Amino acid sequence: MWNLHGTVAQEGDLAELVGSAHKVYIFNLKSGSEFHTHRGVILHDDLIGKSWGIQVFSHLGSPFFLMQPALGEILLELPRNTQILYPKEIGYILVTMGIGPGQHVLEAGTGSGALTSALAFAVGATGRVTSYEVRGEMQRTAIKNLDRLGLRDRVTLKLGDIANGFDETGVDALFLDVPNPFDYMPQVRKALKQGGFFGSILPTTNQVTILLTALRREGFAFIDVCEILLRFYKAEPDKLRPTDRMVAHTGYLIFARPVMLSQKEPIEISPNENAGEVDVIDPGC
Amino acid sequence: MWNLHGTVAQEGDLAELVGSAHKVYIFNLKSGSEFHTHRGVILHDDLIGKSWGIQVFSHLGSPFFLMQPALGEILLELPRNTQILYPKEIGYILVTMGIGPGQHVLEAGTGSGALTSALAFAVGATGRVTSYEVRGEMQRTAIKNLDRLGLRDRVTLKLGDIANGFDETGVDALFLDVPNPFDYMPQVRKALKQGGFFGSILPTTNQVTILLTALRREGFAFIDVCEILLRFYKAEPDKLRPTDRMVAHTGYLIFARPVMLSQKEPIEISPNENAGEVDVIDPGC
Amino acid sequence: MWNLHGTVAQEGDLAELVGSAHKVYIFNLKSGSEFHTHRGVILHDDLIGKSWGIQVFSHLGSPFFLMQPALGEILLELPRNTQILYPKEIGYILVTMGIGPGQHVLEAGTGSGALTSALAFAVGATGRVTSYEVRGEMQRTAIKNLDRLGLRDRVTLKLGDIANGFDETGVDALFLDVPNPFDYMPQVRKALKQGGFFGSILPTTNQVTILLTALRREGFAFIDVCEILLRFYKAEPDKLRPTDRMVAHTGYLIFARPVMLSQKEPIEISPNENAGEVDVIDPGC
Amino acid sequence: MWNLHGTVAQEGDLAELVGSAHKVYIFNLKSGSEFHTHRGVILHDDLIGKSWGIQVFSHLGSPFFLMQPALGEILLELPRNTQILYPKEIGYILVTMGIGPGQHVLEAGTGSGALTSALAFAVGATGRVTSYEVRGEMQRTAIKNLDRLGLRDRVTLKLGDIANGFDETGVDALFLDVPNPFDYMPQVRKALKQGGFFGSILPTTNQVTILLTALRREGFAFIDVCEILLRFYKAEPDKLRPTDRMVAHTGYLIFARPVMLSQKEPIEISPNENAGEVDVIDPGC
Repeated sequence: MWNLHGTVAQEGDLAELVGSAHKVYIFNLKSGSEFHTHRGVILHDDLIGKSWGIQVFSHLGSPFFLMQPALGEILLELPRNTQILYPKEIGYILVTMGIGPGQHVLEAGTGSGALTSALAFAVGATGRVTSYEVRGEMQRTAIKNLDRLGLRDRVTLKLGDIANGFDETGVDALFLDVPNPFDYMPQVRKALKQGGFFGSILPTTNQVTILLTALRREGFAFIDVCEILLRFYKAEPDKLRPTDRMVAHTGYLIFARPVMLSQKEPIEISPNENAGEVDVIDPGC
Repeated sequence: MWNLHGTVAQEGDLAELVGSAHKVYIFNLKSGSEFHTHRGVILHDDLIGKSWGIQVFSHLGSPFFLMQPALGEILLELPRNTQILYPKEIGYILVTMGIGPGQHVLEAGTGSGALTSALAFAVGATGRVTSYEVRGEMQRTAIKNLDRLGLRDRVTLKLGDIANGFDETGVDALFLDVPNPFDYMPQVRKALKQGGFFGSILPTTNQVTILLTALRREGFAFIDVCEILLRFYKAEPDKLRPTDRMVAHTGYLIFARPVMLSQKEPIEISPNENAGEVDVIDPGC
Repeated sequence: MWNLHGTVAQEGDLAELVGSAHKVYIFNLKSGSEFHTHRGVILHDDLIGKSWGIQVFSHLGSPFFLMQPALGEILLELPRNTQILYPKEIGYILVTMGIGPGQHVLEAGTGSGALTSALAFAVGATGRVTSYEVRGEMQRTAIKNLDRLGLRDRVTLKLGDIANGFDETGVDALFLDVPNPFDYMPQVRKALKQGGFFGSILPTTNQVTILLTALRREGFAFIDVCEILLRFYKAEPDKLRPTDRMVAHTGYLIFARPVMLSQKEPIEISPNENAGEVDVIDPGC
Repeated sequence: MWNLHGTVAQEGDLAELVGSAHKVYIFNLKSGSEFHTHRGVILHDDLIGKSWGIQVFSHLGSPFFLMQPALGEILLELPRNTQILYPKEIGYILVTMGIGPGQHVLEAGTGSGALTSALAFAVGATGRVTSYEVRGEMQRTAIKNLDRLGLRDRVTLKLGDIANGFDETGVDALFLDVPNPFDYMPQVRKALKQGGFFGSILPTTNQVTILLTALRREGFAFIDVCEILLRFYKAEPDKLRPTDRMVAHTGYLIFARPVMLSQKEPIEISPNENAGEVDVIDPGC
């Protein structure tokens, strides 16, 4: 179970051992189990009860740090059979789509459950993620991944083709991580509440073009297309410089919100110039 | 109060009216109040009870969309007297530092409360944000901003100089948004739990260099320096292209985790080759 | 006349005065003339004979530096009626398309003559630039610009529609700066020598897609699509950081080379293993 | 000899064979020689006299294109023992520093001669490049590279330490490709003409900071710091997207021009308001 609270490693916790060259191993602590690598063995019982952040050694003397894994590390290490979203995209998706504690978020396809996990973490115990997947094998991978993180109880996994529509309506946010989101706009419209948050990610400009056309046709507004570039630096105080190479592309993010155009009939109004409380907020930017 | 649930605008909700040229107005709905701009007036009572996402018109006939504001829009529109963090950085900070429902996060300085708001939203009703600020005026701005969002009860605001140390210990994550984070490393060490998440943002390479030196000296590991570039596109299906200009720099993000180096004494271990359950997880990347 | 040699400003030279806030004025030195701004007047005769790089003052006491203008400054300051190519693109075009002294380069459309000027500078007195333009007004602007730089005698300007083909054949390099380069691929094929360098710049991804299709159809190979991002820093030694904003997009550069696919008949060859001189060069990358 | 003119491959020409997977081989055509790879053999005599841009086959039937190599390809393939400048930087250096036919350019250190070659190409037969190098072995590598390109006669190579100063004075442009350019500012000042173009490239922000301080101290103005990011796309018409990875950093480019500050004595001037010819050029940007 993934738990970022607490100061001491406990039975059942998702733990991370980081060896030399920042090689990362993530697993659940279980009394009686052993952690094996070619750099030696460590007993889980020698980790349970230890403070997070300490250095431990294998029976061969190789050093490891005992850490609580960050979401980014879990996602990058996730057993998977598909392309995953990177932390740089996931963080921006959460903030842009207003995904936080208590929200109900809809997703398709589940894939290996990377975004599903991040969404489930963000909505918390009081929130809910419903995720559709058409391939049974992928769903089973996602279940394993969610189980390991202890996030499965917040997620409803559905096996089926979203071409047949979502069972849900009025959801706060809906993310499509499929190659052809443009084929499901009417279905999205029905499931997502008016004014809700729609998001998608697509690798090619051609797909973005088709999605933009579909979004306009279906009455979406506030359409944004963007990409996020993350550039790491060598963290040497006296030789500070960007790393030589970087990930140049994961995908284009597309966001939009379904709106309802009214017939243009100005609302009847007799503005009271002397009204006691008038809140006019003009950011002036 | 900022509430992203529900399908209908209600008294007390934080609402957003978006006029032509995407001009954004954010305010709390209050029966009897009026919304005034040079494009005309709208009565709050004509908004309360309406579905989110619909189009409304001022008494002069100007159209506006009635929306629930996204975190990114709130942050950009926040009344403030300092530089704020952008959504692109905030999303990445949340994901990288494992900030989610139930967490206890420490921050300094509060500033106008932009990051404080984002943190308070992310930790939810069961979490807690404690934020230090040395300038009383800034703290008052932050209080106003948090009040407006209905997030104040999750936040403990403290007026004081962190040079004197934090009152808290064992916090899960700590973010310093001050120009000289390098001066407070011992204080951070005491407040942040072993293995916890430290983060900071700095505008210049010179500051980054000093912070890196301080982090090394104080026994931080897993030090990452990065920057996030967000590039928007013109969302025209038949003329898809990046916008002409973009924000080129907000700051360098620095992340690190305090660790404890052990004296090198290899753990005594007699690996049981026949152990029933051995979980070796090697991502192999 | 634009002349980057010499150490002293001379009659006829293209000169640059740079005032406060880096305001740039570019003009030809002419005995008897005056330079007027709202910051005062400077007689050309007080500049002629002076060393480049010195500081001069207007009659109002405003300081200016007397400089030989760089190509980049000339291009940015060029009187024009169209979008121009930026130095970052022009430099890369020159290097990628092998454009240097003595080359014959074909261009369309001339536009305001910005790229034409850069090409004419690069091919030198022994090279030649032929540039087509369909709009007479644009060509007149280009002539003025080329005259001012003293580069007109290296350039053949032609008024006409390249849909009717180019008069030239066997040119070394051909650049199309038109919105629909894909419509002229057969014409390019006839004018450009086999194995020569083709280049173009287009603002939208949609146009790039169409051009790529056209290039493949017409037997071009070595097709490259790229974009160049130039990021400036504030040149403060103790506050080194990127500027806040940057140009995010000028256009996508597309390069390709026309090739001739042979019928697959392996060349008859009896390799002489004992040949005295065998130059095998394998970069091994 | 590197020659981008002509339509037919000739004895002595620098030729390029490009095999499958864009593997590039660059060599000089020499009657009687053979080109050997593990994909088979091609006789130089079967290439000499052929049109550039055609496809040829090895005795094993492997296809190759016969091309004139572009500067970028030569640089990337150059036998070298040091880090080289990339075409993206070289193009921008040429344009920014006004380097073209007939110019005299000074450089240190020579290194493997990559930038030297590009400079020699750009200044043409009427220009001159003088390049200093302190390591004899590097100079010998550069000589080989320049010989192969047929550019050696435009270059004066000097073996020596620029700490002792340059022999030249009044040069138009000077580029320092050394790790400690800041140590040679007085020497640069003596060699470079007033108002000339100085350029350098440095990998770390710390070095840039030191150079900026040195440039200010020595009376340089128009100081620019920038970096160039080149992003390639997969050239698939129906799947247009950036490549997955890119070069994130080669170095920071620094440009500056030596100027002479005058004592502030406003020039005496009686502006003739009725002067017949007054050229006021205000770009108004």
